[in-house]
Amino acid sequence: LAYDFARTVESLRAGDPRALSRAISIVENRAPGWSDLLKALFPHAGHARILGLTGAPGAGKSTLVDQLARHYRKQQNTIGIIAVDPSSPYTGGAILGDRIRMQNHHADAGIYIRSMATRGSLGGLARTTADVATVIDASGRDLVMIETVGVGQDEIDIVRLADITVVILVPGMGDDVQTIKAGIMEIADIFVINKCDRDGADHVEREIRAMQSLATRADGWTPSIVKTVASEGRGIAELATAIAAYEAYLKTANLAEKRTIHNWQQRLIEMIRDAMLDRARAQLTGQQLETYAAEIAAHRRDPYSLVEEIVTTAVLPPASKNNL
Amino acid sequence: LAYDFARTVESLRAGDPRALSRAISIVENRAPGWSDLLKALFPHAGHARILGLTGAPGAGKSTLVDQLARHYRKQQNTIGIIAVDPSSPYTGGAILGDRIRMQNHHADAGIYIRSMATRGSLGGLARTTADVATVIDASGRDLVMIETVGVGQDEIDIVRLADITVVILVPGMGDDVQTIKAGIMEIADIFVINKCDRDGADHVEREIRAMQSLATRADGWTPSIVKTVASEGRGIAELATAIAAYEAYLKTANLAEKRTIHNWQQRLIEMIRDAMLDRARAQLTGQQLETYAAEIAAHRRDPYSLVEEIVTTAVLPPASKNNL
Repeated sequence: LAYDFARTVESLRAGDPRALSRAISIVENRAPGWSDLLKALFPHAGHARILGLTGAPGAGKSTLVDQLARHYRKQQNTIGIIAVDPSSPYTGGAILGDRIRMQNHHADAGIYIRSMATRGSLGGLARTTADVATVIDASGRDLVMIETVGVGQDEIDIVRLADITVVILVPGMGDDVQTIKAGIMEIADIFVINKCDRDGADHVEREIRAMQSLATRADGWTPSIVKTVASEGRGIAELATAIAAYEAYLKTANLAEKRTIHNWQQRLIEMIRDAMLDRARAQLTGQQLETYAAEIAAHRRDPYSLVEEIVTTAVLPPASKNNL
Repeated sequence: LAYDFARTVESLRAGDPRALSRAISIVENRAPGWSDLLKALFPHAGHARILGLTGAPGAGKSTLVDQLARHYRKQQNTIGIIAVDPSSPYTGGAILGDRIRMQNHHADAGIYIRSMATRGSLGGLARTTADVATVIDASGRDLVMIETVGVGQDEIDIVRLADITVVILVPGMGDDVQTIKAGIMEIADIFVINKCDRDGADHVEREIRAMQSLATRADGWTPSIVKTVASEGRGIAELATAIAAYEAYLKTANLAEKRTIHNWQQRLIEMIRDAMLDRARAQLTGQQLETYAAEIAAHRRDPYSLVEEIVTTAVLPPASKNNL
């Protein structure tokens, strides 16, 4: 096993996209040894910029991300794209979009696209996405773009972990949509108004400005607003310039490191939580869990006292490496 | 403290809405003693039906819920409504909607409305909502309606815990919106097509039927479809009839208990996770966490080995009751 890993790591570092895909699958599926693989890859990561892009359904995210990828490719950057797709937590399975999209960049090994499906209910998607970004980062790509539909807490958690967050808006969305985006709005380092040839682009811009006039960010940055028509490639160079400007700002103010450290604090807590959960689960057999649940459902036992009891009396066995 | 709780529990059980509000605030804010309060209330809960209602922004959820509440009030049922609002995880704070809505039922103590805001990022909202539902249940209300915007995993988690789940659709939404709802669609016990006087209502119905023709539910139930115009009160009685029909089905097939037990299995795991996380957090001072995060950010330390180490060597102190 150790030897296989070494070879996967080596091929992946040498730029083999099949080794990259294999490593991502191991990490995404929590296949045996995923934790050891991440340990081996982690020291090689940390060089890629992580760019998070999010927006409502229909905002044209994929097109914008593809255009931006083309732009960076012209500058000889290598790119990984993680497309986080909303899909059923019950049926699982990724959407085929990445295959279709890959065809657009078919001959170009410098662009790697990977879809991730929503899975489970224990908040695992954000963490898995971050781990997959680490794998791509370790493969030596210059830029990792994470693209999500900006509608829920999961998506906020995902883009929160990026170095730079781009929020994509589009004219003509109802007020309700703007309400949903409340949490998303506050994490934007850069706003894109895509499909800006549509009616209402100025209205969206005014709304952003109005929001910005209400509060100043702790880091002093006022998110820039870039108008694009991604389907025609309009505004893409301007977006890249805005991204570069924010990066420069992060450097002068030494904010990039602070942001990364802050993000890692959050990720560490989440990782500890997940690891503790695995160990807690190991305390209970499925039969015990069902018995307890039946007693609680009948209100013969209260769950609050029970959990206290389980956690307090837990004699934790040494964690298995592959379970972590 | 114990005496205060006894009095709060007593007033709440006697139907005092202020005691109910106080108890909810303690539970929602995880104020000191929240766990003891829930332990005291839990044996009194379990009698209310829990109805979950979810749908995209603009589907008319609040109006539908209000109309349904009116309908059940006419049958002398007492009602609690929990409106889970999408709002910023950064600023927190509930939307004022409940105050406005309360005015519609102003003179009626039989309807209690409470808004909950999105809080934190560790998946706490679903659990807190479930705990608040337990408090309202223990207060003797016949029916607790939980209303969420059906856009993310959080919302799926929330309505998943209901006895009966109603998914509200509306004609004229784009395909993207239907994609998002994939996870939501599968948890529907009853579909409502609201604003059914709009163009496209038949199209939505056909889409649901097409989806239903693809797969059979494990419990054998085919979710019914009810068309409403909530703003005019049309279809509300039919919805109540559909809800009653599903309840009857649950009873004959003995499915209600199975569903409750299944839900409690999931909730127990989540509660154990949260409690373990609290204890894990107690292992690390803020300073330690920051130091670790800085070392990881600089890639001098890998987080996967670190977490393994923390969890394996954790000597857990007895959990404090109020921390649980």
